[in-house]
Amino acid sequence: MRTNIRGQIFIAAALLCLLTLTTAVAQTADPLPSWNEGKSKKAIMDFVAKVTKEGSPDFVPMPERIATFDNDGCLWAEQPMYFQLLFALDRVKALAPQHPEWKTTEPFASLLKGDVKGALAGGEPAIGQIVMTTHAGLTTEEFEKVVKDWAATAKHPKTGRLYTEMVYQPMLELLDYLRANGFKTFIVSGGGIEFMRPWAERVYGIPPEQVVGSSGKTKFEMRDGRPVLLKLPEVNFIDDKTGKPVGINQHIGRRPIAAFGNSDGDLQMLQWTAAGSGARFCLYVHHTDAEREWDYDRASHIGRLDKGLDEATAKGWTVVDMKKDWKVIYPFEKK
Amino acid sequence: MRTNIRGQIFIAAALLCLLTLTTAVAQTADPLPSWNEGKSKKAIMDFVAKVTKEGSPDFVPMPERIATFDNDGCLWAEQPMYFQLLFALDRVKALAPQHPEWKTTEPFASLLKGDVKGALAGGEPAIGQIVMTTHAGLTTEEFEKVVKDWAATAKHPKTGRLYTEMVYQPMLELLDYLRANGFKTFIVSGGGIEFMRPWAERVYGIPPEQVVGSSGKTKFEMRDGRPVLLKLPEVNFIDDKTGKPVGINQHIGRRPIAAFGNSDGDLQMLQWTAAGSGARFCLYVHHTDAEREWDYDRASHIGRLDKGLDEATAKGWTVVDMKKDWKVIYPFEKK
Repeated sequence: MRTNIRGQIFIAAALLCLLTLTTAVAQTADPLPSWNEGKSKKAIMDFVAKVTKEGSPDFVPMPERIATFDNDGCLWAEQPMYFQLLFALDRVKALAPQHPEWKTTEPFASLLKGDVKGALAGGEPAIGQIVMTTHAGLTTEEFEKVVKDWAATAKHPKTGRLYTEMVYQPMLELLDYLRANGFKTFIVSGGGIEFMRPWAERVYGIPPEQVVGSSGKTKFEMRDGRPVLLKLPEVNFIDDKTGKPVGINQHIGRRPIAAFGNSDGDLQMLQWTAAGSGARFCLYVHHTDAEREWDYDRASHIGRLDKGLDEATAKGWTVVDMKKDWKVIYPFEKK
Repeated sequence: MRTNIRGQIFIAAALLCLLTLTTAVAQTADPLPSWNEGKSKKAIMDFVAKVTKEGSPDFVPMPERIATFDNDGCLWAEQPMYFQLLFALDRVKALAPQHPEWKTTEPFASLLKGDVKGALAGGEPAIGQIVMTTHAGLTTEEFEKVVKDWAATAKHPKTGRLYTEMVYQPMLELLDYLRANGFKTFIVSGGGIEFMRPWAERVYGIPPEQVVGSSGKTKFEMRDGRPVLLKLPEVNFIDDKTGKPVGINQHIGRRPIAAFGNSDGDLQMLQWTAAGSGARFCLYVHHTDAEREWDYDRASHIGRLDKGLDEATAKGWTVVDMKKDWKVIYPFEKK
């Protein structure tokens, strides 16, 4: 019996060795094939090389290799409006039969007439009301299912693609590359934590416990002897701007050594990252490709990049020029 | 050059193989040497065996192997009072010279006269005031240093040991055993998240991002052009009782398959864990050893275990009898 177990262990170990060798050889290939050669790609690879080189003055032990990524406009697209808002609008339509009063109440009345612009004219309060109404009242399990179903079926108004197909291929490669080099990758997004978790692991390889985002309050209660968490229509935390370092401290408890964003909402996360001692890496994705994606920065309502662009220039952070730096934008463009 | 790199990769792979083989062989040894043979140890090992056995109906994929541990009274001792409260009392003494007004203000006046009982007679509000006053007003970095210094020097009033030496050897082995079997181990404690993180990685092997706890609010601000997070005297979250499932959902976003506690404050965490589908494991540490540790349960003010003990019995959860089940309590008892 003992010999048998030892034999099995030996076979398992041998298989692991084979895997290790294969992986080691595979790593000599270009880890970022969708990135054109240039300053951005070089800056990323130089940083990874120096923090992972044992004995180098810039070496960072593996547990401290924390990398944080914004989501909207950094890992997936965010035009013509944040995808979570499009989810909320879809949800208003789905819930309308249960809410006859919405026919005469704004912002719902305009929405149901197809007048999105009119509905959102109320600004942040109107948007807040739409999000709260469509994100609360369910248990966390029920909401997870709603998001999963939506992510599996809803289509983007311009591309006709699933929203989860509109992720950036170069960023997927970057996530893999960092993880292959011992980094732990986190999302730190203004988006809803419970809106991202149901698909982030499948799409980005980022498990729920490494997703930080905005959230509503939840309440523990017993239903027929079974505990549930009910989602309340009450803000718990807004993970945006100065909230990002707060969220990072709360969830991760360790300062990132690399941070990736695309808007002024990410500026404080990049500042917080840059302020640590030792080697640091800050990167902004700049949306410059009107043809393959969108072209916007200082004047945009969604994903405005203004102060951040100035600070990136002043501090020498890496600014990705989507049009020049990326061979493809979305995975479905790959031949 | 290329050959040289390949050569280095081969050596690295060969070393990894050796490590794998050594680890594989080492795993045939008893992974829980400080646990006496008996029902508790068997229940733990049976559970781990079935959820890690591929093809078994109870198999759980690695990313879903989440295990959560209470800290006070579960991973380290909590008598004669929570160690964090002892930290706060030490800190009142250290800060007293900067606060002459404390000489005439309760609960500080009693504390400074050495009358701990009198100071705590004010109950939760008095305790809250002591904790808030001693935990706020610093940046998160400054507070981390204060905790690290305290953990490195402060001694327990009864044993004369460092507090971080008063961790339970059998639980350290359990943490290692679970991790060796692909579990991700988390702390989920009523204690302060920023009080535990500075030493949890060194002592338990649990990195900051896997520590969930109570917290105060923090505020992002610039000091001489450098961003800091200032700790405010305001509660952010209480990670106790019904707060534990809320905290688990917020931080981990995935239901644990195993949970470990020792008091009624952990009951909702165990209920939440048990309510998931598939194999689940719930365990209470029962403090039954007046000689080597402490002996308390239903009537204790600290770490009361009353309703939880009834529910554990009713549900067939594992209840560890410290006196019978554990060969040693603390690491320093090992020969």
